[in-house]
Amino acid sequence: MDKIGRYEFLAEPFHCDYAGRLFMGHLGNHLLNAADFHSTDRGFGMKYLMTIQRSWVLSRLAIEVVDMPSMYEKFTVETWVESAMRYFTNRNFKVVGSNGKTQAWGRSVWAMINTESRHPEDIYAIDNGAIDKWIVKDYDCPIDKCGRVALSDGVQLIKTIDTTYSDVDINGHVNSVKYIEHVLDLWSIEWYREHKLKRFEIAYVAEAHQGERLSFYREQINEMEYYVRIVRNDGTETCRSRVVFK
Amino acid sequence: MDKIGRYEFLAEPFHCDYAGRLFMGHLGNHLLNAADFHSTDRGFGMKYLMTIQRSWVLSRLAIEVVDMPSMYEKFTVETWVESAMRYFTNRNFKVVGSNGKTQAWGRSVWAMINTESRHPEDIYAIDNGAIDKWIVKDYDCPIDKCGRVALSDGVQLIKTIDTTYSDVDINGHVNSVKYIEHVLDLWSIEWYREHKLKRFEIAYVAEAHQGERLSFYREQINEMEYYVRIVRNDGTETCRSRVVFK
Repeated sequence: MDKIGRYEFLAEPFHCDYAGRLFMGHLGNHLLNAADFHSTDRGFGMKYLMTIQRSWVLSRLAIEVVDMPSMYEKFTVETWVESAMRYFTNRNFKVVGSNGKTQAWGRSVWAMINTESRHPEDIYAIDNGAIDKWIVKDYDCPIDKCGRVALSDGVQLIKTIDTTYSDVDINGHVNSVKYIEHVLDLWSIEWYREHKLKRFEIAYVAEAHQGERLSFYREQINEMEYYVRIVRNDGTETCRSRVVFK
Repeated sequence: MDKIGRYEFLAEPFHCDYAGRLFMGHLGNHLLNAADFHSTDRGFGMKYLMTIQRSWVLSRLAIEVVDMPSMYEKFTVETWVESAMRYFTNRNFKVVGSNGKTQAWGRSVWAMINTESRHPEDIYAIDNGAIDKWIVKDYDCPIDKCGRVALSDGVQLIKTIDTTYSDVDINGHVNSVKYIEHVLDLWSIEWYREHKLKRFEIAYVAEAHQGERLSFYREQINEMEYYVRIVRNDGTETCRSRVVFK
């Protein structure tokens, strides 16, 4: 089996924005699905891990857009493991349009946890370090790794939302894709008419649950760049995000 | 070509709720996609209609759940046109699980409008009444048609939301699927732990746009049945919905 997985998706009409371009949250969902299919097809997916009380946990995700898929466009998400350490793997993505052109790149960092203790687990303990045979070192992903998002004291509270039934996944946590949607909803359609997304980055720090109130703080770094911090009502930071427009 | 269209979908992990069952909003999205694929494959889809300044507009949707698809389950959406009149068509749906059992049924009502005047158009004027050759009269859909949702004066304001960038589709309107999500978010996970959705019904009355504030009014009809009315900040009703639990 090829070390690189390739999965075809469609930019469905209800997953596209006012301009007929795929929402970043839905693109993120397709990348995470591709990651899931790739690892399942190669014997280290969620379904297998559940049987040994392990789970992959997404720690960071960065997506850089070249040309967002248009409504009804078919596109392919390529994904591969770039490297693995004891407690983390780096997984990359390339989104290729129906015309063969690259539409987006992605980088992600995953930890493996024990689903009972919730503590990190040694990835190399699974099947004698089997992850090593899937590592691809020579396939380019020309975007920066996820960086450190260091907010100053000058952050501004922009919005507070109560998390709902539809925010929460099977683990009882606000799901990774919904956070992307909530962060990007901090800007209006008028803003998006003038500014296209260039890069979206998110670090998942702690979990939130249904009924909790999430506060979104934002800091403008320069004309085209913002940092966002999401904080639970108990004061715990759940996510940090960096949003760059062009 | 078969008069009945059949399209396979997957209950993706981020489209499933706390219990690992597909969210009703995402099921609705799959039905609407199936409707779109079916009509496109048969020459009366959105893409063709756009070229003659026409569009399908969803007027009503009712979905009745037998057994909601589970996470990672593949299921098939069957769809067909049950009847057509001058200004409306009735389109039905049957959702069939990977084990061959029926998981849900759906009924929908569609109008055709002129995209310039926004007025209704005669469906039979398209291609000499070509819709007639796709009508299926002998395939059962054993659920009630969309009913009249008559709210009393006893409705209660439950929630108000500001519509955002991610609510809005290419027409600049709050999209049909997002309304389903917003309505079902009126109940908490604790409620859903005790009550499963039996039937969801929605009538789309008027459009809402990004930045508008939507107020959700709810009236309890009996122990397991609720009516919901969504009103824009200018007082215009945008949707009515009926939600039945079991």
